[in-house]
Amino acid sequence: MGSLDSNFPESSLPFSQFKPLDPEEFRKQAHQMVDFIADYYKNIETYPVLSQVEPGYLHSRIPNTAPYKPEPFDAILRDVQKDIIPGMTHWLSPNFFAYFPATVSTAAFLGEMLCTSFNSVGFNWLASPAATELEAIVMDWLANMLKLPKSFMFSGTGGGVIQGTTSEAILCTLVAARDRALARIGAENISKLVVYGSDQTHSTYAKACKLAGIIPCNIRSIPTTADTEFSLSPSLVRTEIEADVAAGLVPVYLCATVGTTSSAAVDPVAALAQVAEAYGVWLHVDSAYAGSACICPEFRQHLDGIERVDSLSLSPHKWFLTYLDCCCLWVKTPSLLVKALSTDPEYLKNKPSESDSVIDYKDWQIGTGRRFRALKIWLVLRSYGVANLQSHIRSDIRMAEMFEWFLKADARFEIVVPRRFALVCFRLNPRAGSEPGLIESLNRKLLECVNSTGRVYMTHTIVGGVYLLRFAVGATLTEDRHVVAAWKLIKKCADDLLKEG
Amino acid sequence: MGSLDSNFPESSLPFSQFKPLDPEEFRKQAHQMVDFIADYYKNIETYPVLSQVEPGYLHSRIPNTAPYKPEPFDAILRDVQKDIIPGMTHWLSPNFFAYFPATVSTAAFLGEMLCTSFNSVGFNWLASPAATELEAIVMDWLANMLKLPKSFMFSGTGGGVIQGTTSEAILCTLVAARDRALARIGAENISKLVVYGSDQTHSTYAKACKLAGIIPCNIRSIPTTADTEFSLSPSLVRTEIEADVAAGLVPVYLCATVGTTSSAAVDPVAALAQVAEAYGVWLHVDSAYAGSACICPEFRQHLDGIERVDSLSLSPHKWFLTYLDCCCLWVKTPSLLVKALSTDPEYLKNKPSESDSVIDYKDWQIGTGRRFRALKIWLVLRSYGVANLQSHIRSDIRMAEMFEWFLKADARFEIVVPRRFALVCFRLNPRAGSEPGLIESLNRKLLECVNSTGRVYMTHTIVGGVYLLRFAVGATLTEDRHVVAAWKLIKKCADDLLKEG
Repeated sequence: MGSLDSNFPESSLPFSQFKPLDPEEFRKQAHQMVDFIADYYKNIETYPVLSQVEPGYLHSRIPNTAPYKPEPFDAILRDVQKDIIPGMTHWLSPNFFAYFPATVSTAAFLGEMLCTSFNSVGFNWLASPAATELEAIVMDWLANMLKLPKSFMFSGTGGGVIQGTTSEAILCTLVAARDRALARIGAENISKLVVYGSDQTHSTYAKACKLAGIIPCNIRSIPTTADTEFSLSPSLVRTEIEADVAAGLVPVYLCATVGTTSSAAVDPVAALAQVAEAYGVWLHVDSAYAGSACICPEFRQHLDGIERVDSLSLSPHKWFLTYLDCCCLWVKTPSLLVKALSTDPEYLKNKPSESDSVIDYKDWQIGTGRRFRALKIWLVLRSYGVANLQSHIRSDIRMAEMFEWFLKADARFEIVVPRRFALVCFRLNPRAGSEPGLIESLNRKLLECVNSTGRVYMTHTIVGGVYLLRFAVGATLTEDRHVVAAWKLIKKCADDLLKEG
Repeated sequence: MGSLDSNFPESSLPFSQFKPLDPEEFRKQAHQMVDFIADYYKNIETYPVLSQVEPGYLHSRIPNTAPYKPEPFDAILRDVQKDIIPGMTHWLSPNFFAYFPATVSTAAFLGEMLCTSFNSVGFNWLASPAATELEAIVMDWLANMLKLPKSFMFSGTGGGVIQGTTSEAILCTLVAARDRALARIGAENISKLVVYGSDQTHSTYAKACKLAGIIPCNIRSIPTTADTEFSLSPSLVRTEIEADVAAGLVPVYLCATVGTTSSAAVDPVAALAQVAEAYGVWLHVDSAYAGSACICPEFRQHLDGIERVDSLSLSPHKWFLTYLDCCCLWVKTPSLLVKALSTDPEYLKNKPSESDSVIDYKDWQIGTGRRFRALKIWLVLRSYGVANLQSHIRSDIRMAEMFEWFLKADARFEIVVPRRFALVCFRLNPRAGSEPGLIESLNRKLLECVNSTGRVYMTHTIVGGVYLLRFAVGATLTEDRHVVAAWKLIKKCADDLLKEG
């Protein structure tokens, strides 16, 4: 310690031997946790996929206040098993066919561990050069895999950033578009700005628009119909925009979707780009789910026209084997993003930032601090390679085709919207000409019957006024046998319901 | 497999044996990663704390495109060691005294592992009941530890939520306040809304205001001065508000800070609440850093008056041994938050949500998906207990006092702002009456000298026009010997500089 601190008043010397990050204790307990998690994955099929607990179940099991003294790790792990696991809806269960699956992998888990371990708060380059540079590199890697034009790459004139979720990606690009417009018409005219999406656009879009101060009556939700498979009509968008311009409003942002949440509908990117360009509207493409499929040549067509859009987002935590949270956003004009989102407080000033030779990712996102998320994408891409990632996409789609094939072979079922990617939208409709309310009620019962078993979890939606069931294949552990078992269960529930009624 | 799928066309049968989450491979590789990380923590002192790489260093080391075929895990780990670690600024190094430290612990790491492993996307209760219920419980636990009134607890009339960062907490509460005001005056009057903070408020505040559509000229940054130790003056706030009201504007939100980023200044909560109440302004308290200290009775006074504010945020990832990202937000009127942030798409509708007997946390935040962050706080609180957490805070403060004591014993140094918590703001000022520009230049050189060694990392700020150096104690692995060594290095650099000049 040297003589320096031997002069520091004795009464103030250490009174605590508390060492919350002792490397050897860390090693021991983390090994224990690895085994706990590996066992969880091994046994995950034995748990009900949809949690069967009642609201408030945890209150009676957990004390009302934090303990004053430490508790042993073993006791905590036992409580995870006893109190937490029964309350989980197991997203990683091979029997999870709800929403869109959140796919994962060993490589991504290792990436998360590494990201956590560094705990770098890489708001600017200097605060963690590797975090910034690896992110820029993997964003270019992914852009290459998707055959995006150079205008979205750092090696070209654009660039990419990892956000937490699509909501953030939309909010950030929307604010860039908004501020570009306000610079022209004056900030006090914010209530004149209008934004566009379809009635199939994710709910988070309208929320992002409201967050950004777009007044609710200026958020257009353009209707879609079955005859375009619920994709957004460019001519309707044009009509809306023209009406708004005529009314003295200022169109500013259009959100197209490649793979909507309800039915995986695909909006026509190129045709929408033509409309957006004509009116100087920022076009964003949300491909949170289906973007990943576009690394396969047979699906790349869904991004045709992408060179004409302003920004694109895709969430690897959905279909790219990457744990939450991870949403990739590419923009064509990073300077617009930075202009809207930069901050420059004295306490973060530093030479590399001032030299303008580095990226400071805090200026590409909502917050300041950020995790080193690029690591998990890097580990996934290197550990599996593009070849395996393409197989993974194709394998999920093949299983969805198998499920579709089962449905087609049973005349009581109908496929309501043509299958897209690995999502099958169907309903039970045993008697032609039945009253719509009766069919809906039958399918609500079917869903309830299936989900209450805990053996399969799927969800529903309504498109074009039709209540339908969604069967989304893609949980990492799902194999053919799970799809077959799910189909058997659905059939069994249908048999029982039809016998009853 | 049964007979069902044996009829599925052969050509479509599995063509890939790719299994990205095999539990036994997971176990093996995750154990290997645990050892890698434990070794990293063990050796962390041997790395330069501030990365010494040049901008662009990584490009030459990494291929331009993702590999087509898989690469072995060992090769990737070697590259982490060889290419990533040299580019890290090691936030967890015991020699990290920059910004505010990001403290961590074994328990929080285990919590992160568990959170990752479940990968639950708990947007609503049903999607992961345990995730929602544990979050509500730990938020009440923390509220109790901070002696917050029942009006912020679920067991009372309020409630809490875990956000990623303070930026999100501010944006969400600001939008709740904004929409409350707009409901009264009409959404088209958004450009009349005014918000208030001080010139010491975190830079993310102005950014959140801009994101929310507050027009830039209505974001008030009220000056602070040395004689109030850079805390926000309630009478100045009142004067500003009165002037704005007189000008026909609508005051809507005030952000007070307990522990500012530059100098850990503390705004007077109770007195500001009095002003805010008088004008119907939403008062938020940002205690990202110093809030954690308020679990010690001797610091709780800084939250006096908290029963009169509308919301409070605190980031356990700063001083509460919890890895990024984790910001706790409490609100007195959750319904205002939910009103501003709720979405209700068909595909997420479910009985528990409709029964109104559960919390759907998607309506308390920006995005939809969310990680099970409560686990890490739960593990920290249980593994260490309140007693150890209090010791941890006091031990960091004691080390800061020691550093302060060294400074006071050396007449060449001056403490520019009284030490608050574990942050010491000082400068080298060897000759009374020196020209301010000269002192600043001397201290810039001192900082450069210290940081370029890679043995210590600290940062600077400017308050009240004075350039000063910030020495923030608190990295989890920091012990007395590191503070002593840092002081010796600072002194050595000062000696050399003064000899030169």
